Amino acid sequence: MRVMIDICYDGSIYEGFAPQSHNRTITYKIEETLKKLYKQPVLIYATSRTDSGVCANSQFVVYDQPFVIEPAQIVKALNANFPPQIYCKRAIEVADGYMPRHDVTSKSYIYNIVKSYNPIFRHVEYHVRKPLDVELMNNACQYLIGTHDFSSFCSANSSVTNKIRTINELSVKLENQTIVVRINGDGFLYNMVRIIVGTLIVIGIGNCPPEYMAEILESKDRRSAFATAPACGLILDKIYLKEYDENWGF
Amino acid sequence: MRVMIDICYDGSIYEGFAPQSHNRTITYKIEETLKKLYKQPVLIYATSRTDSGVCANSQFVVYDQPFVIEPAQIVKALNANFPPQIYCKRAIEVADGYMPRHDVTSKSYIYNIVKSYNPIFRHVEYHVRKPLDVELMNNACQYLIGTHDFSSFCSANSSVTNKIRTINELSVKLENQTIVVRINGDGFLYNMVRIIVGTLIVIGIGNCPPEYMAEILESKDRRSAFATAPACGLILDKIYLKEYDENWGF
Repeated sequence: MRVMIDICYDGSIYEGFAPQSHNRTITYKIEETLKKLYKQPVLIYATSRTDSGVCANSQFVVYDQPFVIEPAQIVKALNANFPPQIYCKRAIEVADGYMPRHDVTSKSYIYNIVKSYNPIFRHVEYHVRKPLDVELMNNACQYLIGTHDFSSFCSANSSVTNKIRTINELSVKLENQTIVVRINGDGFLYNMVRIIVGTLIVIGIGNCPPEYMAEILESKDRRSAFATAPACGLILDKIYLKEYDENWGF
Repeated sequence: MRVMIDICYDGSIYEGFAPQSHNRTITYKIEETLKKLYKQPVLIYATSRTDSGVCANSQFVVYDQPFVIEPAQIVKALNANFPPQIYCKRAIEVADGYMPRHDVTSKSYIYNIVKSYNPIFRHVEYHVRKPLDVELMNNACQYLIGTHDFSSFCSANSSVTNKIRTINELSVKLENQTIVVRINGDGFLYNMVRIIVGTLIVIGIGNCPPEYMAEILESKDRRSAFATAPACGLILDKIYLKEYDENWGF
Protein backbone atom coordinates (compact mmCIF):
# COMPACT_ATOMS: atom_id res chain seq x y z
CA MET A 1 0.00 0.00 0.00
CA ARG A 2 1.40 3.34 -1.06
CA VAL A 3 1.61 6.11 1.50
CA MET A 4 2.30 9.83 1.05
CA ILE A 5 3.93 11.79 3.85
CA ASP A 6 4.46 15.54 4.24
CA ILE A 7 7.78 16.40 5.79
CA CYS A 8 9.60 19.56 6.74
CA TYR A 9 13.32 19.66 7.31
CA ASP A 10 16.33 21.74 8.19
CA GLY A 11 18.55 20.97 5.22
CA SER A 12 21.47 23.08 6.45
CA ILE A 13 23.65 20.17 7.51
CA TYR A 14 22.55 17.85 4.71
CA GLU A 15 23.81 17.53 1.18
CA GLY A 16 20.45 17.94 -0.48
CA PHE A 17 17.52 15.67 -1.03
CA ALA A 18 18.70 13.57 -3.95
CA PRO A 19 20.01 10.08 -3.22
CA GLN A 20 23.80 9.97 -3.19
CA SER A 21 26.41 7.39 -2.50
CA HIS A 22 26.94 8.81 0.99
CA ASN A 23 24.76 9.12 4.05
CA ARG A 24 24.38 12.89 4.44
CA THR A 25 21.24 13.31 2.29
CA ILE A 26 17.65 13.72 3.45
CA THR A 27 16.70 10.71 1.30
CA TYR A 28 19.24 8.53 3.12
CA LYS A 29 17.98 9.64 6.55
CA ILE A 30 14.33 8.98 5.66
CA GLU A 31 15.06 5.57 4.14
CA GLU A 32 17.17 4.68 7.15
CA THR A 33 14.24 5.52 9.46
CA LEU A 34 11.74 3.60 7.29
CA LYS A 35 14.03 0.56 7.32
CA LYS A 36 14.05 0.68 11.11
CA LEU A 37 10.24 0.96 11.15
CA TYR A 38 9.45 -1.78 8.61
CA LYS A 39 12.50 -3.99 9.33
CA GLN A 40 13.37 -4.05 5.62
CA PRO A 41 14.63 -1.63 2.95
CA VAL A 42 12.00 0.86 1.72
CA LEU A 43 12.59 3.18 -1.26
CA ILE A 44 11.12 6.67 -1.29
CA TYR A 45 10.09 8.96 -4.16
CA ALA A 46 10.23 12.68 -3.48
CA THR A 47 8.16 15.36 -5.22
CA SER A 48 10.90 17.93 -5.46
CA ARG A 49 14.64 17.79 -5.11
CA THR A 50 16.25 20.41 -2.91
CA ASP A 51 19.89 21.43 -3.15
CA SER A 52 22.47 20.96 -0.47
CA GLY A 53 21.74 23.33 2.43
CA VAL A 54 18.15 24.13 1.42
CA CYS A 55 15.34 23.86 4.02
CA ALA A 56 11.74 22.84 3.31
CA ASN A 57 8.53 23.80 5.09
CA SER A 58 6.78 21.05 3.16
CA GLN A 59 7.87 18.27 0.83
CA PHE A 60 5.85 15.24 -0.26
CA VAL A 61 7.34 11.78 -0.26
CA VAL A 62 5.71 8.47 -1.26
CA TYR A 63 6.72 4.89 -0.53
CA ASP A 64 5.17 1.43 -0.57
CA GLN A 65 4.53 -0.06 2.86
CA PRO A 66 5.84 -3.64 3.25
CA PHE A 67 3.01 -4.08 5.76
CA VAL A 68 0.18 -1.78 6.73
CA ILE A 69 0.62 0.83 9.44
CA GLU A 70 -2.19 3.36 9.80
CA PRO A 71 -1.31 6.92 8.64
CA ALA A 72 -1.72 8.49 12.10
CA GLN A 73 0.61 5.83 13.54
CA ILE A 74 3.13 6.39 10.74
CA VAL A 75 3.40 10.06 11.72
CA LYS A 76 4.08 9.15 15.36
CA ALA A 77 6.52 6.37 14.55
CA LEU A 78 8.51 8.47 12.07
CA ASN A 79 8.79 11.43 14.42
CA ALA A 80 9.93 9.18 17.23
CA ASN A 81 12.76 7.96 14.99
CA PHE A 82 13.70 10.81 12.62
CA PRO A 83 16.76 12.90 13.45
CA PRO A 84 15.74 16.32 14.91
CA GLN A 85 16.32 17.95 11.50
CA ILE A 86 13.37 16.11 9.92
CA TYR A 87 9.70 16.10 10.94
CA CYS A 88 6.65 14.37 9.47
CA LYS A 89 3.58 16.62 9.52
CA ARG A 90 0.97 14.20 8.12
CA ALA A 91 0.42 10.97 6.19
CA ILE A 92 -2.26 9.52 3.91
CA GLU A 93 -2.91 6.37 1.90
CA VAL A 94 -2.70 7.04 -1.85
CA ALA A 95 -3.43 4.99 -4.97
CA ASP A 96 -0.91 2.31 -5.99
CA GLY A 97 1.77 3.83 -8.16
CA TYR A 98 0.71 7.40 -7.38
CA MET A 99 3.62 9.76 -8.02
CA PRO A 100 3.07 13.28 -6.60
CA ARG A 101 5.98 14.41 -8.76
CA HIS A 102 3.76 13.88 -11.84
CA ASP A 103 0.81 15.59 -10.15
CA VAL A 104 2.33 18.97 -9.27
CA THR A 105 0.36 22.03 -10.38
CA SER A 106 2.79 24.51 -8.83
CA LYS A 107 5.50 25.02 -6.22
CA SER A 108 6.31 27.98 -4.01
CA TYR A 109 9.72 29.00 -2.70
CA ILE A 110 10.79 31.72 -0.28
CA TYR A 111 14.20 33.39 -0.33
CA ASN A 112 15.24 35.53 2.67
CA ILE A 113 17.79 38.34 2.37
CA VAL A 114 19.03 40.26 5.44
CA LYS A 115 21.24 43.30 5.90
CA SER A 116 22.71 42.15 9.22
CA TYR A 117 24.16 38.70 9.61
CA ASN A 118 22.38 36.83 12.41
CA PRO A 119 24.08 33.57 13.40
CA ILE A 120 20.84 32.26 14.93
CA PHE A 121 19.08 32.27 11.54
CA ARG A 122 22.09 31.78 9.24
CA HIS A 123 20.57 28.59 7.76
CA VAL A 124 17.49 30.42 6.38
CA GLU A 125 18.88 33.86 5.48
CA TYR A 126 21.40 35.24 3.04
CA HIS A 127 23.37 38.23 4.29
CA VAL A 128 23.84 41.06 1.76
CA ARG A 129 25.75 43.98 3.25
CA LYS A 130 24.90 46.51 0.54
CA PRO A 131 21.49 48.21 0.70
CA LEU A 132 18.91 46.80 -1.71
CA ASP A 133 16.19 48.80 -3.46
CA VAL A 134 13.04 46.67 -3.15
CA GLU A 135 11.20 48.73 -5.78
CA LEU A 136 13.92 48.17 -8.40
CA MET A 137 13.81 44.46 -7.61
CA ASN A 138 10.03 44.35 -7.98
CA ASN A 139 10.22 46.20 -11.30
CA ALA A 140 12.62 43.55 -12.57
CA CYS A 141 10.31 40.74 -11.38
CA GLN A 142 7.60 41.79 -13.82
CA TYR A 143 9.67 40.66 -16.82
CA LEU A 144 9.83 37.09 -15.54
CA ILE A 145 6.17 36.53 -14.66
CA GLY A 146 4.39 34.41 -17.27
CA THR A 147 5.48 31.59 -19.58
CA HIS A 148 9.02 31.92 -20.93
CA ASP A 149 12.11 30.00 -21.96
CA PHE A 150 14.19 30.27 -18.77
CA SER A 151 17.49 29.02 -20.28
CA SER A 152 19.27 32.09 -18.89
CA PHE A 153 18.22 31.07 -15.39
CA CYS A 154 19.22 27.43 -15.59
CA SER A 155 22.51 26.01 -14.35
CA ALA A 156 24.82 25.15 -17.23
CA ASN A 157 25.10 21.67 -15.68
CA SER A 158 21.46 20.86 -16.36
CA SER A 159 20.61 18.21 -18.94
CA VAL A 160 16.95 19.25 -19.24
CA THR A 161 16.02 20.18 -22.83
CA ASN A 162 12.65 21.88 -22.42
CA LYS A 163 13.37 25.05 -20.51
CA ILE A 164 9.95 26.64 -20.84
CA ARG A 165 8.32 27.25 -17.47
CA THR A 166 5.54 29.44 -16.09
CA ILE A 167 6.06 31.79 -13.16
CA ASN A 168 2.71 32.68 -11.59
CA GLU A 169 4.00 34.90 -8.82
CA LEU A 170 7.26 36.67 -8.15
CA SER A 171 7.45 39.45 -5.56
CA VAL A 172 9.93 41.14 -3.26
CA LYS A 173 8.75 42.54 0.08
CA LEU A 174 10.42 44.06 3.11
CA GLU A 175 8.97 42.18 6.12
CA ASN A 176 10.40 43.41 9.44
CA GLN A 177 14.13 43.57 8.72
CA THR A 178 14.06 40.86 6.06
CA ILE A 179 13.70 41.18 2.29
CA VAL A 180 11.53 38.24 1.30
CA VAL A 181 11.41 37.02 -2.30
CA ARG A 182 8.39 34.80 -2.99
CA ILE A 183 8.08 32.79 -6.17
CA ASN A 184 5.43 30.37 -7.41
CA GLY A 185 5.65 28.50 -10.69
CA ASP A 186 4.64 25.29 -12.42
CA GLY A 187 8.19 23.98 -12.19
CA PHE A 188 11.75 25.18 -11.78
CA LEU A 189 14.95 24.40 -13.65
CA TYR A 190 18.15 23.47 -11.84
CA ASN A 191 19.19 26.48 -9.68
CA MET A 192 16.49 28.62 -11.35
CA VAL A 193 15.20 30.29 -8.16
CA ARG A 194 18.72 30.99 -6.91
CA ILE A 195 19.87 32.47 -10.26
CA ILE A 196 16.76 34.69 -10.39
CA VAL A 197 17.42 35.88 -6.82
CA GLY A 198 21.14 36.41 -7.54
CA THR A 199 20.18 38.58 -10.52
CA LEU A 200 17.54 40.48 -8.50
CA ILE A 201 20.21 41.26 -5.88
CA VAL A 202 22.53 42.83 -8.50
CA ILE A 203 19.58 44.90 -9.71
CA GLY A 204 18.60 45.83 -6.12
CA ILE A 205 22.14 47.04 -5.41
CA GLY A 206 21.77 49.31 -8.45
CA ASN A 207 24.47 47.70 -10.57
CA CYS A 208 22.05 46.79 -13.37
CA PRO A 209 18.80 48.47 -14.48
CA PRO A 210 15.59 46.44 -13.96
CA GLU A 211 14.77 46.60 -17.69
CA TYR A 212 17.89 44.53 -18.36
CA MET A 213 15.97 41.55 -16.95
CA ALA A 214 14.10 41.38 -20.29
CA GLU A 215 17.39 41.16 -22.20
CA ILE A 216 18.75 38.48 -19.88
CA LEU A 217 15.59 36.41 -20.43
CA GLU A 218 15.70 37.01 -24.19
CA SER A 219 19.35 35.95 -24.54
CA LYS A 220 18.57 32.37 -23.39
CA ASP A 221 22.17 32.24 -22.17
CA ARG A 222 23.14 31.47 -18.56
CA ARG A 223 26.14 33.80 -18.88
CA SER A 224 23.95 36.89 -19.22
CA ALA A 225 22.31 36.38 -15.79
CA PHE A 226 24.28 37.01 -12.58
CA ALA A 227 25.75 34.72 -9.93
CA THR A 228 23.60 32.05 -8.29
CA ALA A 229 22.50 33.19 -4.81
CA PRO A 230 23.62 30.79 -2.06
CA ALA A 231 21.44 27.94 -0.80
CA CYS A 232 21.23 29.28 2.76
CA GLY A 233 18.45 31.79 1.92
CA LEU A 234 16.19 29.33 0.11
CA ILE A 235 13.18 27.49 1.55
CA LEU A 236 10.87 25.18 -0.38
CA ASP A 237 7.60 26.47 1.05
CA LYS A 238 4.72 24.63 -0.57
CA ILE A 239 3.85 22.13 -3.29
CA TYR A 240 0.38 22.11 -4.84
CA LEU A 241 -1.03 18.85 -6.20
CA LYS A 242 -3.85 18.21 -8.68
CA GLU A 243 -5.28 15.23 -6.79
CA TYR A 244 -5.07 16.59 -3.27
CA ASP A 245 -6.13 19.93 -1.83
CA GLU A 246 -4.04 21.58 0.85
CA ASN A 247 -5.78 19.85 3.73
CA TRP A 248 -5.08 16.21 2.98
CA GLY A 249 -3.83 13.67 5.47
CA PHE A 250 -3.72 12.87 9.16
CA MET B 1 43.23 48.93 26.70
CA ARG B 2 39.89 47.40 27.57
CA VAL B 3 37.40 46.79 24.81
CA MET B 4 33.71 45.86 24.98
CA ILE B 5 32.15 43.85 22.17
CA ASP B 6 28.49 43.00 21.49
CA ILE B 7 28.02 39.50 20.18
CA CYS B 8 25.09 37.39 19.12
CA TYR B 9 25.29 33.63 18.90
CA ASP B 10 23.52 30.42 18.10
CA GLY B 11 24.15 28.53 21.34
CA SER B 12 22.36 25.38 20.20
CA ILE B 13 25.50 23.33 19.63
CA TYR B 14 27.46 24.83 22.51
CA GLU B 15 27.51 23.91 26.16
CA GLY B 16 26.73 27.37 27.45
CA PHE B 17 28.73 30.49 27.93
CA ALA B 18 30.60 29.74 31.14
CA PRO B 19 34.23 28.64 30.86
CA GLN B 20 34.61 24.90 31.18
CA SER B 21 37.41 22.43 31.00
CA HIS B 22 36.36 21.49 27.47
CA ASN B 23 36.20 23.34 24.17
CA ARG B 24 32.46 23.44 23.39
CA THR B 25 31.64 26.69 25.20
CA ILE B 26 31.11 30.12 23.68
CA THR B 27 33.83 31.48 25.99
CA TYR B 28 36.33 28.98 24.62
CA LYS B 29 35.47 29.84 21.02
CA ILE B 30 35.81 33.59 21.61
CA GLU B 31 39.08 33.25 23.50
CA GLU B 32 40.40 30.94 20.79
CA THR B 33 39.59 33.59 18.15
CA LEU B 34 41.13 36.41 20.23
CA LYS B 35 44.29 34.36 20.71
CA LYS B 36 44.55 34.00 16.95
CA LEU B 37 44.02 37.75 16.50
CA TYR B 38 46.44 38.97 19.20
CA LYS B 39 48.90 36.05 18.97
CA GLN B 40 48.68 35.50 22.74
CA PRO B 41 46.10 34.32 25.29
CA VAL B 42 43.32 36.84 26.03
CA LEU B 43 40.78 36.34 28.83
CA ILE B 44 37.21 37.55 28.42
CA TYR B 45 34.59 38.64 30.95
CA ALA B 46 30.97 38.18 29.96
CA THR B 47 28.00 40.15 31.23
CA SER B 48 25.59 37.28 31.49
CA ARG B 49 26.02 33.55 31.50
CA THR B 50 23.75 31.56 29.24
CA ASP B 51 22.95 27.89 29.72
CA SER B 52 23.86 25.14 27.35
CA GLY B 53 21.75 25.43 24.18
CA VAL B 54 20.61 29.02 24.76
CA CYS B 55 20.94 31.61 21.96
CA ALA B 56 21.65 35.33 22.42
CA ASN B 57 20.65 38.29 20.28
CA SER B 58 23.08 40.39 22.28
CA GLN B 59 25.69 39.71 24.95
CA PHE B 60 28.45 42.05 26.12
CA VAL B 61 31.98 40.82 26.57
CA VAL B 62 35.06 42.79 27.70
CA TYR B 63 38.76 41.98 27.41
CA ASP B 64 42.09 43.78 27.61
CA GLN B 65 43.87 44.23 24.29
CA PRO B 66 47.54 43.16 24.35
CA PHE B 67 48.05 45.79 21.65
CA VAL B 68 45.66 48.33 20.19
CA ILE B 69 43.36 47.47 17.30
CA GLU B 70 40.70 50.05 16.46
CA PRO B 71 37.11 49.00 17.38
CA ALA B 72 35.86 48.99 13.76
CA GLN B 73 38.79 46.74 12.80
CA ILE B 74 38.13 44.43 15.76
CA VAL B 75 34.60 43.82 14.47
CA LYS B 76 35.89 42.88 11.01
CA ALA B 77 38.74 40.74 12.30
CA LEU B 78 36.55 38.84 14.75
CA ASN B 79 33.84 38.13 12.18
CA ALA B 80 36.44 36.91 9.70
CA ASN B 81 37.62 34.39 12.31
CA PHE B 82 34.62 33.46 14.47
CA PRO B 83 32.83 30.18 13.74
CA PRO B 84 29.51 30.81 11.88
CA GLN B 85 27.59 30.42 15.17
CA ILE B 86 29.08 33.63 16.64
CA TYR B 87 28.93 37.19 15.28
CA CYS B 88 30.31 40.47 16.61
CA LYS B 89 27.88 43.36 16.07
CA ARG B 90 29.98 46.24 17.44
CA ALA B 91 32.95 47.19 19.60
CA ILE B 92 33.99 50.16 21.74
CA GLU B 93 36.90 51.20 23.97
CA VAL B 94 35.88 51.28 27.64
CA ALA B 95 37.57 52.42 30.86
CA ASP B 96 40.28 50.21 32.34
CA GLY B 97 38.74 47.61 34.62
CA TYR B 98 35.19 48.34 33.42
CA MET B 99 32.99 45.34 34.11
CA PRO B 100 29.61 45.49 32.33
CA ARG B 101 28.46 42.70 34.64
CA HIS B 102 28.53 45.22 37.52
CA ASP B 103 26.81 47.87 35.42
CA VAL B 104 23.63 46.06 34.38
CA THR B 105 20.37 47.86 35.01
CA SER B 106 18.21 45.13 33.48
CA LYS B 107 18.14 42.18 31.10
CA SER B 108 15.47 40.96 28.70
CA TYR B 109 14.81 37.39 27.65
CA ILE B 110 12.42 35.91 25.09
CA TYR B 111 10.97 32.41 25.30
CA ASN B 112 9.20 30.97 22.22
CA ILE B 113 6.56 28.24 22.49
CA VAL B 114 5.03 26.61 19.40
CA LYS B 115 2.21 24.16 18.88
CA SER B 116 3.77 22.47 15.82
CA TYR B 117 7.33 21.25 15.90
CA ASN B 118 9.34 22.91 13.13
CA PRO B 119 12.78 21.37 12.62
CA ILE B 120 14.02 24.55 10.92
CA PHE B 121 13.56 26.59 14.11
CA ARG B 122 14.03 23.85 16.70
CA HIS B 123 16.95 25.73 18.32
CA VAL B 124 14.81 28.78 19.23
CA GLU B 125 11.38 27.24 19.94
CA TYR B 126 9.94 24.83 22.47
CA HIS B 127 7.23 22.56 21.14
CA VAL B 128 4.18 22.10 23.41
CA ARG B 129 1.57 19.86 21.86
CA LYS B 130 -1.28 20.76 24.24
CA PRO B 131 -3.17 24.01 23.59
CA LEU B 132 -2.18 26.88 25.87
CA ASP B 133 -4.51 29.58 27.16
CA VAL B 134 -2.58 32.83 26.77
CA GLU B 135 -5.00 34.74 29.00
CA LEU B 136 -4.53 32.31 31.92
CA MET B 137 -0.76 32.62 31.45
CA ASN B 138 -0.94 36.41 31.50
CA ASN B 139 -3.09 36.37 34.62
CA ALA B 140 -0.43 34.29 36.35
CA CYS B 141 2.32 36.68 35.22
CA GLN B 142 0.87 39.51 37.29
CA TYR B 143 1.82 37.79 40.57
CA LEU B 144 5.52 37.79 39.64
CA ILE B 145 5.92 41.39 38.47
CA GLY B 146 7.67 43.53 41.08
CA THR B 147 10.31 42.87 43.75
CA HIS B 148 10.07 39.44 45.38
CA ASP B 149 12.08 36.61 46.87
CA PHE B 150 12.26 34.23 43.89
CA SER B 151 13.57 31.19 45.79
CA SER B 152 10.76 29.06 44.30
CA PHE B 153 12.07 29.89 40.82
CA CYS B 154 15.72 29.18 41.42
CA SER B 155 17.47 25.91 40.64
CA ALA B 156 18.18 23.92 43.80
CA ASN B 157 21.81 23.77 42.60
CA SER B 158 22.31 27.51 43.00
CA SER B 159 24.63 28.76 45.74
CA VAL B 160 23.33 32.36 45.60
CA THR B 161 22.00 33.50 48.98
CA ASN B 162 20.12 36.71 48.12
CA LYS B 163 17.22 35.59 45.99
CA ILE B 164 15.38 38.89 45.87
CA ARG B 165 15.02 40.18 42.31
CA THR B 166 12.78 42.66 40.49
CA ILE B 167 10.77 41.71 37.41
CA ASN B 168 9.82 44.85 35.48
CA GLU B 169 7.97 43.17 32.65
CA LEU B 170 6.49 39.72 32.10
CA SER B 171 4.00 39.12 29.31
CA VAL B 172 2.70 36.34 27.08
CA LYS B 173 1.58 37.12 23.54
CA LEU B 174 0.47 35.09 20.55
CA GLU B 175 2.55 36.39 17.60
CA ASN B 176 1.76 34.59 14.34
CA GLN B 177 1.77 30.94 15.39
CA THR B 178 4.17 31.45 18.27
CA ILE B 179 3.46 32.11 21.93
CA VAL B 180 6.14 34.57 22.99
CA VAL B 181 7.00 35.10 26.66
CA ARG B 182 8.93 38.32 27.27
CA ILE B 183 10.60 39.04 30.58
CA ASN B 184 12.70 41.95 31.78
CA GLY B 185 14.26 42.16 35.21
CA ASP B 186 17.21 43.54 37.14
CA GLY B 187 18.76 40.10 37.35
CA PHE B 188 17.84 36.45 37.18
CA LEU B 189 18.64 33.49 39.40
CA TYR B 190 19.95 30.22 37.99
CA ASN B 191 17.25 28.77 35.67
CA MET B 192 14.78 31.43 36.88
CA VAL B 193 13.35 32.31 33.45
CA ARG B 194 13.01 28.66 32.47
CA ILE B 195 11.28 27.70 35.76
CA ILE B 196 8.87 30.64 35.39
CA VAL B 197 8.09 29.59 31.80
CA GLY B 198 7.72 25.92 32.81
CA THR B 199 5.21 26.97 35.47
CA LEU B 200 3.35 29.28 33.05
CA ILE B 201 3.01 26.34 30.64
CA VAL B 202 1.33 24.15 33.29
CA ILE B 203 -1.04 27.04 34.03
CA GLY B 204 -1.67 27.63 30.30
CA ILE B 205 -2.57 23.97 29.81
CA GLY B 206 -5.15 24.44 32.56
CA ASN B 207 -3.61 22.06 35.08
CA CYS B 208 -3.11 24.75 37.70
CA PRO B 209 -5.11 27.97 38.35
CA PRO B 210 -3.24 31.25 37.72
CA GLU B 211 -3.81 32.36 41.33
CA TYR B 212 -1.63 29.48 42.48
CA MET B 213 1.36 31.49 41.18
CA ALA B 214 1.06 33.65 44.34
CA GLU B 215 1.31 30.56 46.56
CA ILE B 216 4.29 29.22 44.65
CA LEU B 217 6.09 32.53 45.07
CA GLU B 218 5.13 32.72 48.76
CA SER B 219 6.38 29.20 49.55
CA LYS B 220 10.01 30.13 48.65
CA ASP B 221 10.47 26.48 47.79
CA ARG B 222 11.67 25.26 44.39
CA ARG B 223 9.52 22.13 44.75
CA SER B 224 6.27 24.10 44.61
CA ALA B 225 7.00 25.47 41.10
CA PHE B 226 6.83 23.19 38.06
CA ALA B 227 9.46 21.67 35.76
CA THR B 228 12.14 23.85 34.18
CA ALA B 229 11.27 24.58 30.52
CA PRO B 230 14.01 23.39 28.12
CA ALA B 231 16.82 25.68 26.96
CA CYS B 232 15.82 25.47 23.28
CA GLY B 233 13.06 28.12 23.60
CA LEU B 234 15.17 30.70 25.42
CA ILE B 235 16.95 33.70 23.88
CA LEU B 236 18.91 36.33 25.79
CA ASP B 237 17.55 39.36 23.96
CA LYS B 238 19.05 42.50 25.45
CA ILE B 239 21.20 43.77 28.30
CA TYR B 240 20.83 47.36 29.53
CA LEU B 241 23.84 49.12 31.03
CA LYS B 242 24.06 52.20 33.28
CA GLU B 243 27.11 53.66 31.54
CA TYR B 244 26.12 53.07 27.93
CA ASP B 245 22.86 53.72 26.12
CA GLU B 246 21.61 51.29 23.50
CA ASN B 247 23.49 52.90 20.63
CA TRP B 248 27.09 52.55 21.77
CA GLY B 249 29.92 51.29 19.65
CA PHE B 250 31.10 50.90 16.10
